[in-house]
Amino acid sequence: MNKIESLSDGWEMYALSERLFPICRSITGDGVRRTHSILREYIPDLVTHEVPTGTECLDWVVPDEWNIRAGYILGQDHEKIVDFQRSNLHVMGYSEPIDREVSLEELEEHLFSLPETPDVIPYATSYYKRTWGFCLTENQRRSLTNSRYHVVIDSDLSPGSLTYSELYLPGRSEKEVMLSSYTCHPSMANNELSGPVVATFLAKWLSAQDHHYSYRLVLAPETIGPIVYLSRHLSTLKKNVVAALNLTCVGDERAWSFMPSRKGNTLSDRVARHVLKHLSQCYTEWNFLEYRGSDERQYCSPGVDLPMVSIMRSRYGSFPEYHTSADDLTVISPAGLQGSLDMHKAYIHLIETNRTYAATVLGEPQLSRRGILDQIGGGTNVLEKRKRIQNFLMCCDGGSDLLQIAESMGVYAGELEPIARLLLGQGLIKEKKCLRD
Amino acid sequence: MNKIESLSDGWEMYALSERLFPICRSITGDGVRRTHSILREYIPDLVTHEVPTGTECLDWVVPDEWNIRAGYILGQDHEKIVDFQRSNLHVMGYSEPIDREVSLEELEEHLFSLPETPDVIPYATSYYKRTWGFCLTENQRRSLTNSRYHVVIDSDLSPGSLTYSELYLPGRSEKEVMLSSYTCHPSMANNELSGPVVATFLAKWLSAQDHHYSYRLVLAPETIGPIVYLSRHLSTLKKNVVAALNLTCVGDERAWSFMPSRKGNTLSDRVARHVLKHLSQCYTEWNFLEYRGSDERQYCSPGVDLPMVSIMRSRYGSFPEYHTSADDLTVISPAGLQGSLDMHKAYIHLIETNRTYAATVLGEPQLSRRGILDQIGGGTNVLEKRKRIQNFLMCCDGGSDLLQIAESMGVYAGELEPIARLLLGQGLIKEKKCLRD
Amino acid sequence: MNKIESLSDGWEMYALSERLFPICRSITGDGVRRTHSILREYIPDLVTHEVPTGTECLDWVVPDEWNIRAGYILGQDHEKIVDFQRSNLHVMGYSEPIDREVSLEELEEHLFSLPETPDVIPYATSYYKRTWGFCLTENQRRSLTNSRYHVVIDSDLSPGSLTYSELYLPGRSEKEVMLSSYTCHPSMANNELSGPVVATFLAKWLSAQDHHYSYRLVLAPETIGPIVYLSRHLSTLKKNVVAALNLTCVGDERAWSFMPSRKGNTLSDRVARHVLKHLSQCYTEWNFLEYRGSDERQYCSPGVDLPMVSIMRSRYGSFPEYHTSADDLTVISPAGLQGSLDMHKAYIHLIETNRTYAATVLGEPQLSRRGILDQIGGGTNVLEKRKRIQNFLMCCDGGSDLLQIAESMGVYAGELEPIARLLLGQGLIKEKKCLRD
Repeated sequence: MNKIESLSDGWEMYALSERLFPICRSITGDGVRRTHSILREYIPDLVTHEVPTGTECLDWVVPDEWNIRAGYILGQDHEKIVDFQRSNLHVMGYSEPIDREVSLEELEEHLFSLPETPDVIPYATSYYKRTWGFCLTENQRRSLTNSRYHVVIDSDLSPGSLTYSELYLPGRSEKEVMLSSYTCHPSMANNELSGPVVATFLAKWLSAQDHHYSYRLVLAPETIGPIVYLSRHLSTLKKNVVAALNLTCVGDERAWSFMPSRKGNTLSDRVARHVLKHLSQCYTEWNFLEYRGSDERQYCSPGVDLPMVSIMRSRYGSFPEYHTSADDLTVISPAGLQGSLDMHKAYIHLIETNRTYAATVLGEPQLSRRGILDQIGGGTNVLEKRKRIQNFLMCCDGGSDLLQIAESMGVYAGELEPIARLLLGQGLIKEKKCLRD
Repeated sequence: MNKIESLSDGWEMYALSERLFPICRSITGDGVRRTHSILREYIPDLVTHEVPTGTECLDWVVPDEWNIRAGYILGQDHEKIVDFQRSNLHVMGYSEPIDREVSLEELEEHLFSLPETPDVIPYATSYYKRTWGFCLTENQRRSLTNSRYHVVIDSDLSPGSLTYSELYLPGRSEKEVMLSSYTCHPSMANNELSGPVVATFLAKWLSAQDHHYSYRLVLAPETIGPIVYLSRHLSTLKKNVVAALNLTCVGDERAWSFMPSRKGNTLSDRVARHVLKHLSQCYTEWNFLEYRGSDERQYCSPGVDLPMVSIMRSRYGSFPEYHTSADDLTVISPAGLQGSLDMHKAYIHLIETNRTYAATVLGEPQLSRRGILDQIGGGTNVLEKRKRIQNFLMCCDGGSDLLQIAESMGVYAGELEPIARLLLGQGLIKEKKCLRD
Repeated sequence: MNKIESLSDGWEMYALSERLFPICRSITGDGVRRTHSILREYIPDLVTHEVPTGTECLDWVVPDEWNIRAGYILGQDHEKIVDFQRSNLHVMGYSEPIDREVSLEELEEHLFSLPETPDVIPYATSYYKRTWGFCLTENQRRSLTNSRYHVVIDSDLSPGSLTYSELYLPGRSEKEVMLSSYTCHPSMANNELSGPVVATFLAKWLSAQDHHYSYRLVLAPETIGPIVYLSRHLSTLKKNVVAALNLTCVGDERAWSFMPSRKGNTLSDRVARHVLKHLSQCYTEWNFLEYRGSDERQYCSPGVDLPMVSIMRSRYGSFPEYHTSADDLTVISPAGLQGSLDMHKAYIHLIETNRTYAATVLGEPQLSRRGILDQIGGGTNVLEKRKRIQNFLMCCDGGSDLLQIAESMGVYAGELEPIARLLLGQGLIKEKKCLRD
């Protein structure tokens, strides 16, 4: 996406990110509910579900709900050395409540910091093992002295429910494109706010479009969220999903990158690669086994086998601010968000227009008789326009889709679509049904 | 074809080219008839057909027949500035008759020249849009002054017929190899006289051969000719053609090049590549979509799907004299024509001998018992001849054809044929039927 | 095999080689019987068979048996210029008996020497054409003067039998892995003693193992031996053999190399390449057609089609001492033999453990709930162990075998086997039956 036509959505997405940023999210809890409630302002048809603690889903069980009000470490002078109010990353996610004095020695076992980046707070969680912890900068940690500390975490960890939302936009076909993103991270911007924010604007745009395929957006906590969702909808998804996108790390301007599906050569992979190849100046394709790390871990697993890919900017794990307090609102930008939105729209546009055509006449049609093109033959100059039409017709073998034709011709599929429409109008090609319709 | 054994056909082909060169041909007309009549002197069984104007064929309609007697531009002093008698390229093909005074301004709209090569006359036609025009050198054009000119084109453009010829040489099998070339260009030598000339000599040679496959030669105007022919013979061609060659641009000595079929991996493609790889020092393979430009445009189109390839010297469009008066008899040569004839014979020889074999004994046969080869085993020197026979037998798996075996062994298929004959004679291999027989 | 854990088998194999080295072997005869009798000391279940002269087998006939007691050339002074007692290579294999005076001229027609390596005796045979001959060093040959010589070969060439041995080790499956080597060469060490010696120790080791597949070892003369064996057991072999190894040239330390099967992509090829890639520092893969030269010539031939490969050190024909007296006990070493034995054990280990697995849970299993791994999520460090388990599970699609999974993951299959066992124990994967079981 070399040039961005308008940044208006970009500014709105940035504003939404600013609004969501301060909320403390985890895989469950009121922060998630508040987040989804805000997203419903943008896409009112988004439906939020609550799944009770203890629900069995595939190999997992929905854990207790976690909510937190405060968390701090008091020093000798009763000053708050580390305080959840200053950054919600300071308390390890899913910390159990505590309120007591500890020695430095005991405290140390519950501290997380990053010696190599001493100014940032790391992000840590312990969803399935009861414990407590504080995340702090390495500099803060170094300032601790060998004395006693009062640690307070005012949290609840008790039966409740897990919150996720879905939006279903029916198309002319029940075959569907699935969009997935996650809402389980506290104050970090590129991973993860950019994902649900761009997904929300993509869904909002889709709501106003006429579309062939149905669309499904799922916003849920990472890992346990897809597990819950699959336990309820696997057969529908397996039957209908023709392509799937996971939206994550789509807010910065530094890079384009691509996470293929496990199978690596699905329609979704092919469309994403084509769009990235033609609309980005360059992009990195990551190895699925080596670098996968988000919802594709569940949706692409054996037996689930959804064709889920991610079109990303800087991939999770690959940018320096990842999973720390440095992944703040300066990492993302209106242009970064807008470019990602546009790239995802291009993906959807190609998915929608990627039909299979068959030429209706044998041999070349007499274009001149139809007034399509210049009628002077001969000459040493090749008429590029005629050649492109003739090349397109030569590829309409009833088996190749628009994407394959574009790749045979070495051009962007988006440029062929007007030609396809022209030739359909002239009756020179016809659409062939294919399985994924 | 590194060394040419005899140039005698080359000189005869060159003489035929000299005889055909002056004739003014187009997609219809008496020049075409005269041309085919001369070719029948060489291959008497060539049958010429006339297809009436107005005949509908696939997406096209046979146009009016065009004949021309004269064409010139008279200047102020009544001198003929541009004159059809000097070069039949001077009048645009299919120009309608005209006889009147025009201003320079009006005249300019009907002139074609090439600013970058100011000494040559371009070749232009307007088959399906009624107009008139003159082609002239850029230097001639620059000499025109702002005065009035008298333009005369003494042509007929009226119902008649389109002329094409075909030769059918029945073989032992009704499966056939199709040869195609075209006879619609006025005085130009490499494109196109070399095509029909070499095709004629190839057909003449075939007439005197014993051959397994049947052979069909079609000589017709480009584009509309194949359209007409397909409209009459499509089902026969689709049923019987196992390989097809389009002969074009086979007269110069500058290059070897190859235009694959649309599918790119047919028997015809494989044989042509093998022959070119082993018998030319190097050759260029052109991309079908990007560079096709002759009868393969029709014969390879979707639904027609004939396996047509071209083994060329300098491809149409790629040599500087292409489609101008500079493509004269100095561009082609006896050696160029002879080398092309030999290469096409090698192609046919390989098509004819490309059988599939199965070894008849399990394990290696005891060659020594049969007196085929030296019977002393051991020693550090490998007996190349024995190894080649054993390699050949090792490849006779009942599924690989001679061509595949040659490519596995890294040798020219022509060198394996005597081995195949020897082993067949010894009963060590047997032929397997395959679909294309 | 970068490091060898123990050389104890290496020393024993070297000692066995020393014992077998002096024996004069050929494709038949008492030397072969003595050799097999010694090998039966190591693998008592080895069964020796005798096939009478004249037996027809495939395209061949078992030849007369050859035994030799003495052979020499006497000079003018009755000194033995060339003497079988000094090296059994001096008499060409299968020389007919002779005892008479010859001129130098006649003698020369029966002499074999190597001008380029004037100090070594070449190895030559004439199994199927009755003649006699002496092999000598080029220096010996040059010392001959133009006088008369008395040549004596005290040999028998008369009806007898061809000797081969086989060992069958039944496994839980009747599907089997075939091991082949040959015992037809006189005093040469790398080609061939290393082959039967390592094969014997491999069989001895297998006898003490629990194994899924059955194992078959065949020791027979090259070429005629496999022909005889195939004539008796082809249908069983075709039905049961899932992988096959030919052991040859496995005694030196200079190289690792690989001879694929004719088809080149069988399980046996894949396993051998994997083992060589991960356990040798580098290896050469030879082209089958160009360089095959041992039992694979028969076992891989069309219609036989056994998946036989060779994991070799320096390939026959490629090392300077090959087929001469220089291929003596200094060419092989305990370390060379041991490394080859270990590499073949690794091959067998992988064949045995190469099962196909399917994950039993959809999505990722909750590893933390099972106490398999660290339960702290988040953090920027990836837990390599967890990732390897998750990657393994992600590849357990019910269609990929352990080898394919290892190649997808870029690791040695041997490292994945403990993971597979752990996950099987946890019920997280299950084995899938496949055809070759």
